[in-house]
Amino acid sequence: MSLRPFNFSAGPAALPEEVLRQVAGEMLDWQGSGMSVMEMSHRGAEFTSIATAAEADLRELLQVPANFRILFMQGGGLAENAIVPMNLSKGGKVDFVVSGSWSKKSAEEAKRYADAAVAASSSDSKFTTLPALSTWQLRRDAAYVHLCSNETIDGVEFHELPDLKALGCDAPLVIDCSSHQLSRSIDWSRVGLAFGGAQKNIGPAGLTLVFVREDLLGHAMSICPSAFDFKVVAEAKSMYNTPPTFGIYVAGLVFQWLKRFSYAGKTGVAAIEQRNIDKAQLLYAALDASAMFENRVAVDCRSRMNIPFYLSGKFNTETLTQAFLTGAKERQLLQLKGHKSVGGMRASIYNAMPLEGVQALVAYLKDFEAQYG
Amino acid sequence: MSLRPFNFSAGPAALPEEVLRQVAGEMLDWQGSGMSVMEMSHRGAEFTSIATAAEADLRELLQVPANFRILFMQGGGLAENAIVPMNLSKGGKVDFVVSGSWSKKSAEEAKRYADAAVAASSSDSKFTTLPALSTWQLRRDAAYVHLCSNETIDGVEFHELPDLKALGCDAPLVIDCSSHQLSRSIDWSRVGLAFGGAQKNIGPAGLTLVFVREDLLGHAMSICPSAFDFKVVAEAKSMYNTPPTFGIYVAGLVFQWLKRFSYAGKTGVAAIEQRNIDKAQLLYAALDASAMFENRVAVDCRSRMNIPFYLSGKFNTETLTQAFLTGAKERQLLQLKGHKSVGGMRASIYNAMPLEGVQALVAYLKDFEAQYG
Repeated sequence: MSLRPFNFSAGPAALPEEVLRQVAGEMLDWQGSGMSVMEMSHRGAEFTSIATAAEADLRELLQVPANFRILFMQGGGLAENAIVPMNLSKGGKVDFVVSGSWSKKSAEEAKRYADAAVAASSSDSKFTTLPALSTWQLRRDAAYVHLCSNETIDGVEFHELPDLKALGCDAPLVIDCSSHQLSRSIDWSRVGLAFGGAQKNIGPAGLTLVFVREDLLGHAMSICPSAFDFKVVAEAKSMYNTPPTFGIYVAGLVFQWLKRFSYAGKTGVAAIEQRNIDKAQLLYAALDASAMFENRVAVDCRSRMNIPFYLSGKFNTETLTQAFLTGAKERQLLQLKGHKSVGGMRASIYNAMPLEGVQALVAYLKDFEAQYG
Repeated sequence: MSLRPFNFSAGPAALPEEVLRQVAGEMLDWQGSGMSVMEMSHRGAEFTSIATAAEADLRELLQVPANFRILFMQGGGLAENAIVPMNLSKGGKVDFVVSGSWSKKSAEEAKRYADAAVAASSSDSKFTTLPALSTWQLRRDAAYVHLCSNETIDGVEFHELPDLKALGCDAPLVIDCSSHQLSRSIDWSRVGLAFGGAQKNIGPAGLTLVFVREDLLGHAMSICPSAFDFKVVAEAKSMYNTPPTFGIYVAGLVFQWLKRFSYAGKTGVAAIEQRNIDKAQLLYAALDASAMFENRVAVDCRSRMNIPFYLSGKFNTETLTQAFLTGAKERQLLQLKGHKSVGGMRASIYNAMPLEGVQALVAYLKDFEAQYG
């Protein structure tokens, strides 16, 4: 393996080097077929085998129950903000837990199709906390409850999904898990539908994954485009329209990589989850110990994936922020600029980020503080 | 260049070999950035430069007027069947010219959103002709008129777009040009909106191109998802949601390839159009001269891109069809099986198919006829 820079992009994001090498090696001839995967009919034997294996591997990795369908779709999380209410709301009530920028957008978009209400919000804390369960005002007849299980911009993560039944709510839980899917296991008993763009932990942008419980299929509003009707897509095995074939292929290689992955005596998702915990702890510990940098999120809901941080107090100047980013690039630590809506810096440390990448960032934080602090 | 098989897939389809080689070569490090294009933030300087160049090159190649916006979207032609009426119909009347399987599907889907009527159809000829202009029953107050300018399954192509004004109709013309876009020039004075999936002449599946006249922006129905509202997408320069970045990159390389392309003393689209004419004439001439094979489409509307053909008369058996396809594969002539809805064979000879590929197919047709005829 060569020494590649460490890429902290929030998405599209770093991919495992061995996956990229395999993609490059197979670019002109996939396994003796004489074709690039990009050149294959999506209905041919070659691509069918690729898509079937990808779905089976993903199902195995996340232990997706048999009564869930896995759909390969297009449009990303933002399109799902419309597609989900068109499929599940029946034009009725839907409740949103707003814990950051993305869930806020989801609630806004759903108003086009449903009586969308905010059941709880942590906007008062500027999204540095999660809304306490005791404050959730769920409507008994809601068609579903939506939350974003990891807020990419705000760096807030649900480390345990709520048990809606225990809150007296029988509605299915919908989670937007774009930026942490496949980084940890999922408790499917608490979920009705999960969706996410692939461009964080899974593959190239343009592929969207939807996990949907079978009883939620078949309720789409008449205005739902056929190409986005979960039942139509499920019955066509994600081939109603031509799927993003190359994205599915890359995702499939990432799934194979993750199945081989081992760490701390574990394999697969358990292994990557442990490494993600270790990476996040290392970085948060360095930020908390620093007099110059800070992360502002409450300790119990800090994201393992997206860690926004800022120069603190008197150090929080545009000049020092720029100096930090310039110096980072010189050290081959890429794409650390914070989201434009919040500024500062952000380290996205998805599955493909090795421990060494976080160690290199922590070393730079210390050196920077020694120089400018 | 190595000797690759000739790939006649209807889509996803063959790409220029030198594009695939460049993609492979840049897979781990795009131009010294230390990142694969798949790993870049869509808002960073690197990817912005890729997307900007791709759009500019496409605009130059097709001489797209300044009052048209070019949008990079997702969902393919089938999604556009819903997205276009949501954006343009205002829930009113829309007229469809049905000349094959795809326009038929488009008309059906539009009924979800509009008073969609069939203004003309060539179903009586089993889609081997185009509906004569004199039969088109256009409604004066239609929001738009839709046609599919190249029917991929039926192999029927409009070689001249209709002048709706001359037919007494002021409505904009919408064309689904998925399977022949960039294979020839377009008369933009006759078009209001053109859309197409990329996976024929342009790049990987999952990228959809939309060319829309600016006065048609801003009329979306309230139920149109934000991610598919042409005005929202245009104002965000195709970055409202994360676009299919890798697909845009590959498309951009195809545009650069086409700008370099020369043939018969011409360059760019004029050159590829001339080669497409020559390739199609060669194959149709061989089919017409054969006593064993036939193409059933009327001469004046035969597609230059998709050429369905069948064993004729007594030769039209499942056994011989299978023998033909097996023999083709042995000669490295791939993906010649006809669409499942019509059977037989189909040669899709998009921009990336060299003249030599068609010559090899014609030689095989003759050899097969000599052996079995």
